[in-house]
Amino acid sequence: MAKRTADGTIKTPRNENFSKLGAGYLFPVVAKKRREYAAAHPDKKVISLGVGDTTHPLPGIVANAMCVYAAGLGTKEGYSGYDPVIVEPVKKKLIEVFYKNCGLTDDEFFISDGSKCDLSRFQTLWNEKAKVAIPSPAYPAYVDNTVISGHTGSFIEKTGEYEGITYMPCGEQNDFFPDLSKAKDVDIMYFCNPNNPTGACATKAQLEQLVKHCIDNQILLVYDAAYACYIRDADKPKTIYEIEGARKIAIESNSFSKLAGFTGVRLGWSIVPKEIKYGNGKLVRDDYNRIFNTHFNGAPNVALAGGLACLENMDVIMDVVKFYQENTRIIIETLKELGFKGIYGGRNSPYVFVKFPGKGSWAAFDEILQKAQVITTPGVGFGPAGEGFVRISSYGTRENVVEACRRFKEVKLGS
Amino acid sequence: MAKRTADGTIKTPRNENFSKLGAGYLFPVVAKKRREYAAAHPDKKVISLGVGDTTHPLPGIVANAMCVYAAGLGTKEGYSGYDPVIVEPVKKKLIEVFYKNCGLTDDEFFISDGSKCDLSRFQTLWNEKAKVAIPSPAYPAYVDNTVISGHTGSFIEKTGEYEGITYMPCGEQNDFFPDLSKAKDVDIMYFCNPNNPTGACATKAQLEQLVKHCIDNQILLVYDAAYACYIRDADKPKTIYEIEGARKIAIESNSFSKLAGFTGVRLGWSIVPKEIKYGNGKLVRDDYNRIFNTHFNGAPNVALAGGLACLENMDVIMDVVKFYQENTRIIIETLKELGFKGIYGGRNSPYVFVKFPGKGSWAAFDEILQKAQVITTPGVGFGPAGEGFVRISSYGTRENVVEACRRFKEVKLGS
Repeated sequence: MAKRTADGTIKTPRNENFSKLGAGYLFPVVAKKRREYAAAHPDKKVISLGVGDTTHPLPGIVANAMCVYAAGLGTKEGYSGYDPVIVEPVKKKLIEVFYKNCGLTDDEFFISDGSKCDLSRFQTLWNEKAKVAIPSPAYPAYVDNTVISGHTGSFIEKTGEYEGITYMPCGEQNDFFPDLSKAKDVDIMYFCNPNNPTGACATKAQLEQLVKHCIDNQILLVYDAAYACYIRDADKPKTIYEIEGARKIAIESNSFSKLAGFTGVRLGWSIVPKEIKYGNGKLVRDDYNRIFNTHFNGAPNVALAGGLACLENMDVIMDVVKFYQENTRIIIETLKELGFKGIYGGRNSPYVFVKFPGKGSWAAFDEILQKAQVITTPGVGFGPAGEGFVRISSYGTRENVVEACRRFKEVKLGS
Repeated sequence: MAKRTADGTIKTPRNENFSKLGAGYLFPVVAKKRREYAAAHPDKKVISLGVGDTTHPLPGIVANAMCVYAAGLGTKEGYSGYDPVIVEPVKKKLIEVFYKNCGLTDDEFFISDGSKCDLSRFQTLWNEKAKVAIPSPAYPAYVDNTVISGHTGSFIEKTGEYEGITYMPCGEQNDFFPDLSKAKDVDIMYFCNPNNPTGACATKAQLEQLVKHCIDNQILLVYDAAYACYIRDADKPKTIYEIEGARKIAIESNSFSKLAGFTGVRLGWSIVPKEIKYGNGKLVRDDYNRIFNTHFNGAPNVALAGGLACLENMDVIMDVVKFYQENTRIIIETLKELGFKGIYGGRNSPYVFVKFPGKGSWAAFDEILQKAQVITTPGVGFGPAGEGFVRISSYGTRENVVEACRRFKEVKLGS
């Protein structure tokens, strides 16, 4: 029990890891900058190519499936409560569409309300002693989760890093694939492929190297495949389970958010293979199943109906992906025309990661906002290795992307 | 870093708290018993009055609102991604409908995918040293969360309790309200009102006593109000914030699940008042806001549309609540006719808690299943103080409830 306190209303001991968190969660900070700019310049039209938030309407067939399911909830026949039967067909369709020859079974799939939520539920699997390796730059939730769960020391202002995390820099110097030899003495390794924010997409050989490294060093690989549907290169794996041996060490999370524009609808899935075993022989899958039943109460049923419609109509879904890919192409062409040299991502990712030579990320972010009224995301917000870059998202209407690019040219961005 | 292992594929240190968990999560165990019985007796029609799972179709106006919103997601005007604007009107309506004079503001409300999920997110607020008090019997997630988060020692088979938890027995001996004097030296106190499973509903005087106890002892009160809409006694508070001072020590969670049949739709809310301060003066609300942005990505937008329709049509929603209340009345009348003496709950709760003298809960559960083919929930599954009782849920069609009661009479249940 904690001691009584004079300054508080409760003596409950705080999770002091919160005090280590360096700054606000990245996207709310960006949103605040946007609001402040808009308030100061009410006449300017701000375009957001910042947060990776989908903008394209859902295909009619998907919206309709959800509408019909929702209407059905008002009928005796169509009503469902906990554990809707629709979960099972969604699992089967996922395996059929994305994991055909991967040797996975239904009971290794957990259908959820999204990847971010699953990443937080994963935290409960391991204890505080676990040492964590995280690519840099990377989706901020990996670091923030790791801090909140108590695996780190303090935030070091000078480096922008936390004590106790093994950062794996990915940049121009190593073709955006980490030097794994520096991350042997860890227990958990995050890997996002295609990477957010860099847009880098690993080759099969690189992923084989990754899996081998984790098997050799008995590291649990937390593989975030949220952008897998953007992979265009036919020879690049879309799931870690295409790699021999991955079922022994890798859990994968994925989502309908970027695949099908479900950022607001909320539907995702995780895979925890039964082959992964802790040192005491217990299955990671069984602990995760317990967590999933104790910390969660099932994916929203209407979203499940939408997800099933997506999986049954992948051609229509991929048309929307192609729409964003065309946005990416327009952005890359514009940046090339403007003479930028360090343009990455895009081909297998909805994000373009571009270097502003001689400028910090936030300075570049501010310049783009001031000059072109376009919101991007500062690369350094994803980790110190992202310094000097901004991430430009392809999630926008065609009109907005074209207008943003017109402004980039008009103000001669980068020169 | 953990040591290499011979028996595992990973050396990642397991959260060993999982090994303490005594048995499976209650409801899957009940579901398994049901499946086994059904497989062995394919000719019998099993009726479930077990898990608190809503069965009544959604009111047309709610189903329709979700259908229209879902259809809108297929249009340029109606599409929304992260952070749908509909969150704000839902918060405002919640305050207007349930918290009118409670002095709460929008930024103290967190709209989520349900109470169970919120209860798990709360875990992150306090550290392992926090001592926890839990009513017995109670919703199993309180205990399971507390074990998984590392606040307990081992499970003691003999008592059915975990070392380190302060259990607060609620039974016939104390009018189902705990002796708070035994729970002074704790940091967190769970309280569910109306209680699940006993159906007990605290008076205003009892809640004043509860709040005073928590203020005096600087205890964070985790108040679960998931069944508040079933409170019929006009003088009984429906939220803890009706009690003076509660804003200093109480966080409250609630849900549309039992209020509006959203068990599958997934929508809930939590309130974390800004007046609650840790010993260092930090606001619990600010930490929770950080968790909510890091571990969660927003309530499903279609569910939000449904929730808003509920709040705008509370008369229609309450008609469904009344439907279940009539089920409860039928169950209670039947049990009275059969001569049961220990019948509790029901009036302000969707659950009837009934004592089977001289019988353990699981024996009573089995007898009801064998004799009447009705699934109930064993009281002891909610904690040792529930031994000897079963919980009968009012969540069923009228037809099923009437048929279950007919069978109870036919087999002379309890005699």
